[in-house]
Amino acid sequence: MHRSEQGLLVVLSGPSGSGKDTVLGELGETVDDLELSVSLTSRERRPWEFDGTHYYFVTREYFEEKLRAGEILEHTQYVNGHYYGTPKGPVDEWLALGKTVILKIEVEGAARIRAIYPDCVSVFLLPPSLEALERRLFGRESENAADIARRTEIARREIARAGDYDYVILNDVLDCAVDDLRAVLRAERRRAARRIKLIEEVLKSC
Amino acid sequence: MHRSEQGLLVVLSGPSGSGKDTVLGELGETVDDLELSVSLTSRERRPWEFDGTHYYFVTREYFEEKLRAGEILEHTQYVNGHYYGTPKGPVDEWLALGKTVILKIEVEGAARIRAIYPDCVSVFLLPPSLEALERRLFGRESENAADIARRTEIARREIARAGDYDYVILNDVLDCAVDDLRAVLRAERRRAARRIKLIEEVLKSC
Repeated sequence: MHRSEQGLLVVLSGPSGSGKDTVLGELGETVDDLELSVSLTSRERRPWEFDGTHYYFVTREYFEEKLRAGEILEHTQYVNGHYYGTPKGPVDEWLALGKTVILKIEVEGAARIRAIYPDCVSVFLLPPSLEALERRLFGRESENAADIARRTEIARREIARAGDYDYVILNDVLDCAVDDLRAVLRAERRRAARRIKLIEEVLKSC
Repeated sequence: MHRSEQGLLVVLSGPSGSGKDTVLGELGETVDDLELSVSLTSRERRPWEFDGTHYYFVTREYFEEKLRAGEILEHTQYVNGHYYGTPKGPVDEWLALGKTVILKIEVEGAARIRAIYPDCVSVFLLPPSLEALERRLFGRESENAADIARRTEIARREIARAGDYDYVILNDVLDCAVDDLRAVLRAERRRAARRIKLIEEVLKSC
């Protein structure tokens, strides 16, 4: 069997409410050798979130210990003091095993990952409109109107940077967005730069 | 409806016998807004070929007239004197209409197309082995052993240039190769550079 020689690192960004978790949940069931990196955060778990699925919810002290130990690939600290970070170990292990690794990450973190892994592929998940985003955020009971106004403004600033990504996927119809992301992963694994060994094998075959 | 703002030009190369026509035949039935450019050639039609499908079979005089009129995008003349060329008009019209246009073209022609259309996407179709290629060529009754040896040597030189392409697709299992090419087309249409208007629309929506 011909096999891709190295893993593929994919950075997925998109404003809160753009549907990243839903898209990744659907994708995970149909793509082989896929690993979703789960971030650490020191913020509190929201009612609809699961520890180990949406984030690893940890204490501030634990996060700072991991930071000092060099085990966090990139991290952010928001004005409210909460940390968000990507654990380094699993990402490098999965890539060495040839897997496709997806990091769900905000725009600043994505830029830092691109600097560390220039071969990574970056995807921005775009909501169909800011109204649609607000409607989805209102659906989450923990949010109040002031929070939502603040998040919409953050979303606007994030969307303004979508053009910095390699791909922009519109999440209007969920199935289409999932198919788009699946196509991006499949296509990127067929990049010529990943096929050098395969080409050599065929040339040697006669 | 959000719509891609411009067409996508795809160059498909691969040695004779790699299965370009079969893959394109399967693809054509499932991808919207797809146009296959049919080349002109002055060589004779082989028994399994159809005029207007595999090539437009024309006289040398007609080809030279089109060349002089600037209606050929790129062309090759083989040592046996036969011309192969891509008609220019339909390609530009389809791209203006936002379609995905596929040019089936050999490696030298592909390099010239990339120079003329730097935004084009290039795909190389790789046979699983040179033996497999020889078996497929033997299946074509019009070929004799000397022709096949010559074609295998040409194939080897073509495959050695597969790394110059954007994507390399292995045609071992036909359905996989078709799915790969479909994924490349779908992914490339989601490139951030093609989504600038879409991003602006979403930003204006609130």
